[in-house]
Amino acid sequence: MHSLVLVRHGQSVWNLENRFTGWWDVDLTSRGVEEARAAGRALAAAGHDFDCAFTSVQTRAIKTLHLILEEMGRLWLPVTKDWRLNERHYGGLTGLDKAETAARHGEEQVKIWRRSFDVAPPAMPQGSPFDVSADRRYAGVAVPRTESLKDTIARALPALSERVMPELAAGRRVLVVAHGNSLRGLVKHLSGLSDAEIVHFEIPTGVPIVYRLDEGLKASSRTFLSVA
Amino acid sequence: MHSLVLVRHGQSVWNLENRFTGWWDVDLTSRGVEEARAAGRALAAAGHDFDCAFTSVQTRAIKTLHLILEEMGRLWLPVTKDWRLNERHYGGLTGLDKAETAARHGEEQVKIWRRSFDVAPPAMPQGSPFDVSADRRYAGVAVPRTESLKDTIARALPALSERVMPELAAGRRVLVVAHGNSLRGLVKHLSGLSDAEIVHFEIPTGVPIVYRLDEGLKASSRTFLSVA
Repeated sequence: MHSLVLVRHGQSVWNLENRFTGWWDVDLTSRGVEEARAAGRALAAAGHDFDCAFTSVQTRAIKTLHLILEEMGRLWLPVTKDWRLNERHYGGLTGLDKAETAARHGEEQVKIWRRSFDVAPPAMPQGSPFDVSADRRYAGVAVPRTESLKDTIARALPALSERVMPELAAGRRVLVVAHGNSLRGLVKHLSGLSDAEIVHFEIPTGVPIVYRLDEGLKASSRTFLSVA
Repeated sequence: MHSLVLVRHGQSVWNLENRFTGWWDVDLTSRGVEEARAAGRALAAAGHDFDCAFTSVQTRAIKTLHLILEEMGRLWLPVTKDWRLNERHYGGLTGLDKAETAARHGEEQVKIWRRSFDVAPPAMPQGSPFDVSADRRYAGVAVPRTESLKDTIARALPALSERVMPELAAGRRVLVVAHGNSLRGLVKHLSGLSDAEIVHFEIPTGVPIVYRLDEGLKASSRTFLSVA
């Protein structure tokens, strides 16, 4: 049996403020830090261990990973950061809170952007203070100006097939700490969920999703680990 | 010009207790955490930036690196952990404080072990609680049972030549966070210091050593960065 654990980062400052975050690089809240530590303790208590870890290039995910590894006494594990595990790019919604978005675009339209599989929000406008396309960490990356969930999944899955799967195939136990929508991509693929199913699959912050995979690397079980 | 910065980890619990630490994996003190953050702020304030970073597989160095990168807004940089950057292995002295060591071996003998280039302390005894040779992080590594400074330098230098130098040659700016004696190895090589000189070269915790290297990757200057 192969073992793969996925964790969504702990609560971020903009999770708390209910703002669309996407590729904007916000920090964890103190509750988010605690969620990350609790996830690490729960993984260790349940007997999980890892040989390598993957995360995005966004601070909230990287810090969550570091806190989990610290609680597990595993800071020394090799860690690979890959932009393809980043959160969905929310385009022109980035930085808006729920009320601003509804006032600007209407409740119904917001529901469509949040709950459709293949409809992207309006593109990030030129000159937006939340435009990260010139950030040095994305040198050589075609930074999207907006993404549907489908777009997010399309660029996240190559990270799974090129980076994670070879480690699992070699018998290594893998931890992935990423974001709500990039993780939806991994879950959709691993569990064979439909477009409609994955849109409604909710991933709480800091709650490990434990996959057991058979010899052919097909998922034989998927469970949420209970975190105290 | 190429840029290479070396930082010794912040104060550890056993630095504070004045115990020989070596390969035993102790944490930073709160002062050590502050030293690491101050180093990060000082590097950013002086206009330093990096493209990749290297550290040992020991928690005190890894955490120091993470804190520096966090203060610099650079947690997303690729980080490579290499056991060859570990602290000198202090053999049978590991875990002893200054008074215990002097009582057991005599002041003069302790001075020889600390201040000689090629005399190693007694080997780590079988069954020592401080023996890390079975630790999973060292799978495949011939864990030493003791090391002289010369031994430490001999295994640290390949990490410099195989890992760090190729990055510098490719024009990347490199940060290395490691330990007093593995860093002595790097400084000895880069600055061409003699065996006698390197024994007396003191590297304070959390104070960046800034190297400028010429086209041929020869050191043209070495300065300690002033940290507020």
